[in-house]
Amino acid sequence: MLYLDDYQPGQVIELGSRKLSREEIVDFARQFDPQPFHVDEAAARESIYGGIIASGWHTVGTLMRLMVDGYLSKVASMGSPGVDQIRWLQPVRPGDTLTARGVVTLVKRSTSKPDRGVVAVEYEVFNQGGERVMTMQGMTLMKTRPQA
Amino acid sequence: MLYLDDYQPGQVIELGSRKLSREEIVDFARQFDPQPFHVDEAAARESIYGGIIASGWHTVGTLMRLMVDGYLSKVASMGSPGVDQIRWLQPVRPGDTLTARGVVTLVKRSTSKPDRGVVAVEYEVFNQGGERVMTMQGMTLMKTRPQA
Repeated sequence: MLYLDDYQPGQVIELGSRKLSREEIVDFARQFDPQPFHVDEAAARESIYGGIIASGWHTVGTLMRLMVDGYLSKVASMGSPGVDQIRWLQPVRPGDTLTARGVVTLVKRSTSKPDRGVVAVEYEVFNQGGERVMTMQGMTLMKTRPQA
Repeated sequence: MLYLDDYQPGQVIELGSRKLSREEIVDFARQFDPQPFHVDEAAARESIYGGIIASGWHTVGTLMRLMVDGYLSKVASMGSPGVDQIRWLQPVRPGDTLTARGVVTLVKRSTSKPDRGVVAVEYEVFNQGGERVMTMQGMTLMKTRPQA
């Protein structure tokens, strides 16, 4: 198990990859973001995107899943107070494989509750062509290592 | 159809309500955010939350769906460059009914592409007890009204 004490600014967290199929993209968007350019092939072709693109929230959800599988499952996470500056830089299209990475920017122990603290991480998501499709600044509330 | 021209700072956008069932909360989290306090009742009881809570991304997805149904379906939206300052202020629990509202904070026509512009909106999500559970600052890229 990893605790707040195990993190330091500059540390790189590799989160692995995941491919998004057309079916997953349309299924997600039908539930949470049914705008025409996410769910309707003909309307998407006429849009500025020229075809179906994934909801930005599907890209975020994919990053979150990679974070849980590759990182949070091994840390003493207590959840998150929030995130900042989500930027969708390039469209994500059916069949794209997304790869995510984080860089720790801040590790701060709570002064009022010394058994926990916040780790801030800058996340980047790339497609299979190496283009950066999304960035996000995340925060995780984390336990400090229990004293022996 | 509503265009950039139809928005002004201070305008309030009521987005309606949606109830989240335990099944929906666990289904979402199993796909995108399988942390113990989202998917495992026993582990959730032992956590700082005292029971299952919705993934913050499920709350965001619910807001997004309310935005599309109550607002974006009627506007000339071209997508979004990003969002800022998502804050999860209170846990969302099974059976909670979320109500969302937005206040327009900025309307800005593009100088380089005068057929479009950005509308910035501060969103708030409340539970059935009137507690504010989430806030987010969103941006929507929107077409200006076509000239006759």
